[in-house]
Amino acid sequence: MTPFASLLNQYKAIFFDAYGVLKNAHGLIPGVDQTIGRLVESQTPFYVLTNDASRSPDELAESYARLGLPQITAHCIVSSGMLAREYLQLKVNHGTVAYLGTPTSAHYIENADLHALPIRDVDLDNAADITALVLLDDEGFDWNTDLNKTVNLLRRRNIPVIVANTDATYPVAGSQVAVAIGAVADMLERIVGKQFIRFGKPDAQLFMFAYDLLRERMPITKSDILMVGDTLKSDILGGNKFGFDTALVLTGNTPAQDVDLRIQATGIIPTYVCESAAV
Amino acid sequence: MTPFASLLNQYKAIFFDAYGVLKNAHGLIPGVDQTIGRLVESQTPFYVLTNDASRSPDELAESYARLGLPQITAHCIVSSGMLAREYLQLKVNHGTVAYLGTPTSAHYIENADLHALPIRDVDLDNAADITALVLLDDEGFDWNTDLNKTVNLLRRRNIPVIVANTDATYPVAGSQVAVAIGAVADMLERIVGKQFIRFGKPDAQLFMFAYDLLRERMPITKSDILMVGDTLKSDILGGNKFGFDTALVLTGNTPAQDVDLRIQATGIIPTYVCESAAV
Amino acid sequence: MTPFASLLNQYKAIFFDAYGVLKNAHGLIPGVDQTIGRLVESQTPFYVLTNDASRSPDELAESYARLGLPQITAHCIVSSGMLAREYLQLKVNHGTVAYLGTPTSAHYIENADLHALPIRDVDLDNAADITALVLLDDEGFDWNTDLNKTVNLLRRRNIPVIVANTDATYPVAGSQVAVAIGAVADMLERIVGKQFIRFGKPDAQLFMFAYDLLRERMPITKSDILMVGDTLKSDILGGNKFGFDTALVLTGNTPAQDVDLRIQATGIIPTYVCESAAV
Amino acid sequence: MTPFASLLNQYKAIFFDAYGVLKNAHGLIPGVDQTIGRLVESQTPFYVLTNDASRSPDELAESYARLGLPQITAHCIVSSGMLAREYLQLKVNHGTVAYLGTPTSAHYIENADLHALPIRDVDLDNAADITALVLLDDEGFDWNTDLNKTVNLLRRRNIPVIVANTDATYPVAGSQVAVAIGAVADMLERIVGKQFIRFGKPDAQLFMFAYDLLRERMPITKSDILMVGDTLKSDILGGNKFGFDTALVLTGNTPAQDVDLRIQATGIIPTYVCESAAV
Repeated sequence: MTPFASLLNQYKAIFFDAYGVLKNAHGLIPGVDQTIGRLVESQTPFYVLTNDASRSPDELAESYARLGLPQITAHCIVSSGMLAREYLQLKVNHGTVAYLGTPTSAHYIENADLHALPIRDVDLDNAADITALVLLDDEGFDWNTDLNKTVNLLRRRNIPVIVANTDATYPVAGSQVAVAIGAVADMLERIVGKQFIRFGKPDAQLFMFAYDLLRERMPITKSDILMVGDTLKSDILGGNKFGFDTALVLTGNTPAQDVDLRIQATGIIPTYVCESAAV
Repeated sequence: MTPFASLLNQYKAIFFDAYGVLKNAHGLIPGVDQTIGRLVESQTPFYVLTNDASRSPDELAESYARLGLPQITAHCIVSSGMLAREYLQLKVNHGTVAYLGTPTSAHYIENADLHALPIRDVDLDNAADITALVLLDDEGFDWNTDLNKTVNLLRRRNIPVIVANTDATYPVAGSQVAVAIGAVADMLERIVGKQFIRFGKPDAQLFMFAYDLLRERMPITKSDILMVGDTLKSDILGGNKFGFDTALVLTGNTPAQDVDLRIQATGIIPTYVCESAAV
Repeated sequence: MTPFASLLNQYKAIFFDAYGVLKNAHGLIPGVDQTIGRLVESQTPFYVLTNDASRSPDELAESYARLGLPQITAHCIVSSGMLAREYLQLKVNHGTVAYLGTPTSAHYIENADLHALPIRDVDLDNAADITALVLLDDEGFDWNTDLNKTVNLLRRRNIPVIVANTDATYPVAGSQVAVAIGAVADMLERIVGKQFIRFGKPDAQLFMFAYDLLRERMPITKSDILMVGDTLKSDILGGNKFGFDTALVLTGNTPAQDVDLRIQATGIIPTYVCESAAV
Repeated sequence: MTPFASLLNQYKAIFFDAYGVLKNAHGLIPGVDQTIGRLVESQTPFYVLTNDASRSPDELAESYARLGLPQITAHCIVSSGMLAREYLQLKVNHGTVAYLGTPTSAHYIENADLHALPIRDVDLDNAADITALVLLDDEGFDWNTDLNKTVNLLRRRNIPVIVANTDATYPVAGSQVAVAIGAVADMLERIVGKQFIRFGKPDAQLFMFAYDLLRERMPITKSDILMVGDTLKSDILGGNKFGFDTALVLTGNTPAQDVDLRIQATGIIPTYVCESAAV
């Protein structure tokens, strides 16, 4: 078990997962405000890497401000929704993009200068102008009718399907979880038998997006960066594979009593295990 | 392409899939009433093997009567729901069984002398009396709230989960499909990481159930029986593996123009290919 | 933890897994000879259900005789190879059957009155007479050249592929394991993209085969039978699903210190947990 | 169908897959020498992106020189083996690295200043100094004994496993294929139940490696780059996801008569379809 404070001086930049590392259902994880404070003070750059396409970076930053962390600005946040937006800009760039998610999440489509249409408003008999489908959030649609409609749209139109959050569940109040759009995407993909395009940890592209932003600010190499996360198979696996050192914290998905067992069972080995990201 | 009529005399008993073989969204498949008529006339036993737990055998038989096939009685029908019921009788036999499905589908639980409780009425904080969960039908519950509740129930209680329909989709009006409870079950199973117990074609147990019923009526061997279906990976794969000869009909899931390609692609080889089950 | 002796009187018949229950790499599991002796004495029928197609039932029986258990005769043994043989008899019944395995394992093909040809002797340019492929054993062939040849045969010929052992590994001396033909089959199936036909626990068909043999001897129902095994996901899952009561013993794949964790993690719940099958 | 020549002027850089695009079992694909010639002449940068860890970039370049393409130097080649090497340098950096592959492929380990040890020479009872395992090539080891040994090593030592080629098969003479180390890796991963670290298309990291090399040479954005490949699910899926335009050529894995069907079936949609990469 490594004290998190001892790591801060060893790296030139820190990448954090959001949920289970900086915050949870009850608010801020105790002590992380001091960690962020120390990073700001020492002018150590940091980024928050999140599998979240339900809100824009501005809205995500506002939520941190409300929790007492105004230092986490929109410029510090890299969301899987931003990768979806980049894909739409580079690869779709015309027509109407159907989506599953809230109107708020549709920001990532509109921000790519595309017309966003909720699945519920798609006319299956006049769907020729639909150029892509994006799965953004598990809220904002009727799971039964709109998922059936999605399957039928994908049987008629051979269009790219972008999944902007690869997580299977996310924590809600108490110790409960909710099914995330990533699990719904897996179900739809198997049903229609097509290959969806997924963005989010552990995939390298989210790490690369943040790494590129950082390299524009300063000369840095992969070994200068520490990825901090609470989940072995997204944060740690993805960070390891990308070439970063990794710190597993025990304030979220990985409880202290299970940590050895899970590292052994999965073969996903963090560089460090820390009680939390507090200093 | 083999004329279906030429097969009737070659076998002592015929097993039919229901949807896409005997009926479809528009009613009876043309000509199958004559096939059933001829079987009744020649006293050739037949069974309908269906991955359907939404209705009791009595209700399924009534639906055939309404379509003009009163010869298909409840005694001719073997549904995957009947296997779920047998499991509950043999292996659960006490307590309250939670379910996803319509009140009609809960017949299979109540018929096993167990208390059936829709997931929506489960109290997660007082769930100690829940002894099993059964996934019966894709209707009768709220997909968002009740699936989330199901995941949380299975995180708290280590109970057997029975899936009474293994299909991923089922046909509805037009050429559209709807997501079936089998696909939902796959999603839930991956989320909770546990092993569910599945009943339905292509699994051997449904074929065995019908074969046992038949053997009680007459001496017969597997080579005396023809399985007729429209779907390679449930009807034909399951029939082949069980040791039956199999006939693929082109009135449902396998369109005539795709049949060669799909047999080649899947390696699932029916004994015969017939235009339909009409004579 | 239930004493195994207390179960013997509660059931009219006992089904045993072989490896890890009756024997292991060092010989007989201590005390199982007395269990078998008591069953013989009380005229309680028993069967050994094994995912093994490497040897004929006669040879398997001889191996028990050599270990001091001559009461386990060939008539007590139900192997997955016997299901492969039944499939070949019912569904192939002509031509040449290619195989991966030892000459000894080819018994199951020859016993079905078919010509058995090791993959190494197949001529890919004259393979029209090959009517099926059977994966019998992990020994008896060159893994590199013969697996490559198998892939190329299946790209040319659309024939049924029968897997006569679904296990991924089997124990060898010390605490080591070896890769079994079931894992090789999974690899080949994914490469060629076709659907193989698998026989062995946890699939219902092996349980049914033994259950049918028993029903020919005496009137019995599923609730009269206890399945005893050391592996949750084959013996216990399969036994449960078929409707038998199940006893997990801790002398093989499931060590005592892991049993609670594994039952919790998999959701596969045995009726009883016993230290061993000794009385 | 787009003439490949018409694309050359539209992009500032071209990325090629190797096998099935530039060469095949018979040598160079006709006309690609002129394509490479024209790129060199117009000073258009190009890279060859290959899922190949069997040979070093120098050896790969020599093989192109022998085929008459000396313009494809080692600096133009990005192999999945180079990603494995980067991982070893950044994340392992001490101890002995066990491997499956030829001595030639072990170059990627030795080049990272690590001691490379073929699995055959590993002593399972003294394996504490083994810090990682790398799967490099399907040749150079005994598939039966060395794969069994690999499974037992991974049961004893919880170490990162790096897969330096994600392909399942590769073409050999005639129309035959051979099983590649990627398929073997999938089998081993399922057996040991651990998470391996895979490098190769369609994963973003190989594209990023080449994109980074290119960005060091000139200012360029993703939309300036065309990825050319013969395989939908590696070259085209990966190129699309990374944000490149993509051209599918019909000189390798995707035959002309299947192209529409496969694009429809997979939902992987290239920007262009071209007969070949010849001009």
